[in-house]
Amino acid sequence: MSPSDNDQDSMPSDYEIAQSTEMVPIWDFLEPWDLDSSDLQYSGEYKAKIEHHAVERLRDDAADRAQNLVLVTGMTPTPLGEGKTVTTVGLGQTLDHLGKEAVIAIREPSLGPIFGVKGGAAGGGYSQVLPMEDINLHFTGDLHALTSAHNLIAAMLDAKISQGSELEIDVNDVEWPRALDMNDRVLRETVVGLGGKTGGTPREDGFLLTAASELMAVLCLASDLGDLKERIARIIVAYDDEGDPVTVDDIEATGPVTMLLRDAIKPNIVQTIEGTPAFVHGGPFANIAHGTNSLIADKAAFGMGDYLVTEAGFGSDLGAEKFMNIVCRFGEMTPNVLVLVASVRALKYHGLDMWPTDYDAIAEAGVDAIERGFENLDKHVQNLQQFGVPVVVAVNRFPNDTDEEIQTVLDHCRDDIGVKAAESTVFADGGEGGVDLAENIIEEVETNDPDDFAFLYEDDASIKEKIETVATEMYGADGVTYTGTASEDIERMEELGFAEYPVCLSKTFHSLSDDSSKKGAPTDWSLEVREVYPSAGAGFLVALTGDVLTMPGLPADPAAADMDIDAEGNISGLF
Amino acid sequence: MSPSDNDQDSMPSDYEIAQSTEMVPIWDFLEPWDLDSSDLQYSGEYKAKIEHHAVERLRDDAADRAQNLVLVTGMTPTPLGEGKTVTTVGLGQTLDHLGKEAVIAIREPSLGPIFGVKGGAAGGGYSQVLPMEDINLHFTGDLHALTSAHNLIAAMLDAKISQGSELEIDVNDVEWPRALDMNDRVLRETVVGLGGKTGGTPREDGFLLTAASELMAVLCLASDLGDLKERIARIIVAYDDEGDPVTVDDIEATGPVTMLLRDAIKPNIVQTIEGTPAFVHGGPFANIAHGTNSLIADKAAFGMGDYLVTEAGFGSDLGAEKFMNIVCRFGEMTPNVLVLVASVRALKYHGLDMWPTDYDAIAEAGVDAIERGFENLDKHVQNLQQFGVPVVVAVNRFPNDTDEEIQTVLDHCRDDIGVKAAESTVFADGGEGGVDLAENIIEEVETNDPDDFAFLYEDDASIKEKIETVATEMYGADGVTYTGTASEDIERMEELGFAEYPVCLSKTFHSLSDDSSKKGAPTDWSLEVREVYPSAGAGFLVALTGDVLTMPGLPADPAAADMDIDAEGNISGLF
Repeated sequence: MSPSDNDQDSMPSDYEIAQSTEMVPIWDFLEPWDLDSSDLQYSGEYKAKIEHHAVERLRDDAADRAQNLVLVTGMTPTPLGEGKTVTTVGLGQTLDHLGKEAVIAIREPSLGPIFGVKGGAAGGGYSQVLPMEDINLHFTGDLHALTSAHNLIAAMLDAKISQGSELEIDVNDVEWPRALDMNDRVLRETVVGLGGKTGGTPREDGFLLTAASELMAVLCLASDLGDLKERIARIIVAYDDEGDPVTVDDIEATGPVTMLLRDAIKPNIVQTIEGTPAFVHGGPFANIAHGTNSLIADKAAFGMGDYLVTEAGFGSDLGAEKFMNIVCRFGEMTPNVLVLVASVRALKYHGLDMWPTDYDAIAEAGVDAIERGFENLDKHVQNLQQFGVPVVVAVNRFPNDTDEEIQTVLDHCRDDIGVKAAESTVFADGGEGGVDLAENIIEEVETNDPDDFAFLYEDDASIKEKIETVATEMYGADGVTYTGTASEDIERMEELGFAEYPVCLSKTFHSLSDDSSKKGAPTDWSLEVREVYPSAGAGFLVALTGDVLTMPGLPADPAAADMDIDAEGNISGLF
Repeated sequence: MSPSDNDQDSMPSDYEIAQSTEMVPIWDFLEPWDLDSSDLQYSGEYKAKIEHHAVERLRDDAADRAQNLVLVTGMTPTPLGEGKTVTTVGLGQTLDHLGKEAVIAIREPSLGPIFGVKGGAAGGGYSQVLPMEDINLHFTGDLHALTSAHNLIAAMLDAKISQGSELEIDVNDVEWPRALDMNDRVLRETVVGLGGKTGGTPREDGFLLTAASELMAVLCLASDLGDLKERIARIIVAYDDEGDPVTVDDIEATGPVTMLLRDAIKPNIVQTIEGTPAFVHGGPFANIAHGTNSLIADKAAFGMGDYLVTEAGFGSDLGAEKFMNIVCRFGEMTPNVLVLVASVRALKYHGLDMWPTDYDAIAEAGVDAIERGFENLDKHVQNLQQFGVPVVVAVNRFPNDTDEEIQTVLDHCRDDIGVKAAESTVFADGGEGGVDLAENIIEEVETNDPDDFAFLYEDDASIKEKIETVATEMYGADGVTYTGTASEDIERMEELGFAEYPVCLSKTFHSLSDDSSKKGAPTDWSLEVREVYPSAGAGFLVALTGDVLTMPGLPADPAAADMDIDAEGNISGLF
């Protein structure tokens, strides 16, 4: 749920709720898991990183645990989001209260985007991870370390280009823009190297958000520091005059870049507002990358509790598909239950078939709009069911939703499409608000066989088969049209030996289709793929469809302008 | 002393020495000063920030302390540096051993430059601050916070330019480049905003190193969070079509920028290799800014010990002059002793009158070269004596220096120019190696009257008088020549009400003059000032002489290429 929904006078702001919560010092908080100061790298009193040796120990402990994996995803959201993080945090709290030892794992926020359109990424209401203002600002410095590491590669690459090397790098085929964790549109397309003879070689360049760096994807998929280093070494940063890849290792950057990430790869642990442990680690994009928190955090979490509740970015078509086909493949994990977050607002948005979004019209719409919006929800349920894992719909209740509206959604799920569903009020009520949802999840976990889980495609399917499987089975397309360089890119990927990689389709999150304006569950369309490139460090192929904005801008009236801090350090306007 | 001097087989590397030192957890280490977890913000087991309320308490405690201030500076160094930080750390350790409660305060390293030419900034040998690898890498994130804060101003400024505002900003008079903590020459001069209609307004731009940001100077001069906010508000980022200043406050960035720096302004405290407390906080350039660690750290240090040993960047002409005329003026501090670090290597470098530097020739040169180099040392001694504070020369012994060479320098100081002098071997011997130096310092502290201290110029001197005083009294120039826009800039500064500001002259550190190639103590020359601009947040006027490189580049064979980390996290090649 977006903080902007929190507009009722009756409820304090997220920041006020967070400030009024008494936190436990992290050393005391983690004592029940035998994590002491030799296992932890403290960051203030309430945040810690877990050292490598302790992560290894937790991995060993996981063998004696149930390792129940609950993935939270959502239907196609409005631009404000429908509350996946709130539901994830709240559900973890509920499971904990119900006597199931639960651990939460979510992505860590990027700093830059916070200054654009208002919205934190630490949950909300009475389902937040704390200290939320730290988590939303610099947190433990992971994003900053990634920014440094990314830009060190860029600087070393340009030094090779401008100061001569045997690599013969093609300046028109550099595939490594610079990165910054700041929404700054003028950096999207730039020319660098204009400082005369000593200013390097002039060329076109650009910046992407740090969260869009392949280093972020690599960090989130690496199993340990050694694996991280191997992945970094093989990242492709350019091609040479012969068209052969130039890697991070070729420009001698593997060592220092890994060194810069030696702390960033240690998972961060904090507590929720109700005292449930939560990993907050890594945050890759869910279009050009896989969109879920680090595998290291997941693996450590399995050693601390019987239930891991985690979330995937955007809808079932984006983060969840990638979690299943990429993350679970690499991490050898099996989801036990898939939770699909739906909201009355999003259902009306689809029912009204609106683009751009008119929130006033949504507020005024009736139950008929909800009913017309079910086709989007239904398609997401079908998408998830294809993986052979039970699905539970969580109807995230917003302040102005009526009982009738909520009941309409629950009835549809249960009666029309035969899927379990429950209302969730964890934003307003904390863990208390997720009991019905959690009981449904526990029932599914206890009655289903996780061996029914299956990937959508196998490693040895062709690249085009993989792309077409996702397009038709998940997006509802009739087929795929390859334009631009896509077909030759795919041939090149095969020549380079990347044919066995899973695919990572970059598609808008505003629609199940590749057209942001189309709501519901679009049919009779073909997915246009215009470019395919390797994320060789991450180990997947990115297929670009439509425009992907990796460097947003600030709006005319940015959220930052309303933020303040007083001389005593009290923050306002952040949430 | 640069780590590259540490080339004797007989001595382990800085990193090896650091790794073999048993550190005390910071909570135990700071217990004698009644600093507990409510006063500290831990960053791992060996680093902490001191919270605002505890800084206030230490300031109050300072009233009962001796507040002896020892400033370490140096003669004009070779490009490798002559060991100011080593001497500062070692001297602090020695004073501590001699029963004088001593606290050290030094600048924190920038991350970016470490990857260019080899060299850490945490001392060296047996006079280091620990954990040196953390301090040299991300440390507590202050540089990263400054980078974010700097670039938020840039993004908000460009949003005002491209999305319309009543400010009428002149795109050709934007005075706020972007910043990155990375030596990256292609970013020195760029064109941004090329992304078409949604990519912002195209304009020339550039990046400077984060350490060169005015925000860094502001952080280091602010007395507390409230003062920081006021200083940030008045930073000038551009001029409008009428030529009037546009400030950070005008673009509504004061609140969020201060918020981003809320932790960065808390001083960092660590321990030296011998267990002396050391503040490592802030690191502004010593040419376009004042070049010393934060005033907040100095003030807190006075509450923890009777002796504060701190250092100023480059030589007496740069960091020390600015420490006295700017920092002591703003911070109402009085130095008790000035320590001038000299080395046989630097004396030969001046005696051989060489440019560029030929280290082989220096190694082969004899005592006669040292003697010819005394004119540089003597001028620095005279410079410091003008402030009415006793001067002690520290001859920092390098591995290959002979007894005769060292004695030649000591004899010259004592017999020819009548200044106290002592050999220092703190690099090789730790605190043991600074006893003679420390005893000289203690004697001066105990026999001199700090009230003899005087600034070189008063607030109400004209801007030109201030510039000319520094040029003639410190640099040995005959006078000042104003070229470019300098004269009209000065008039404008007067109109804008900045006439009372102290001046911050930006000059090469390779020579006492404005010509890097001139060694010794150049005479018969006039200082050329080509531009004057306000650092309105810091509260001084910058006078540019010659070219100032605020964004260095990586060399063809960068130090980064030799750095590595293994799967267990062991670092190599960093030092």
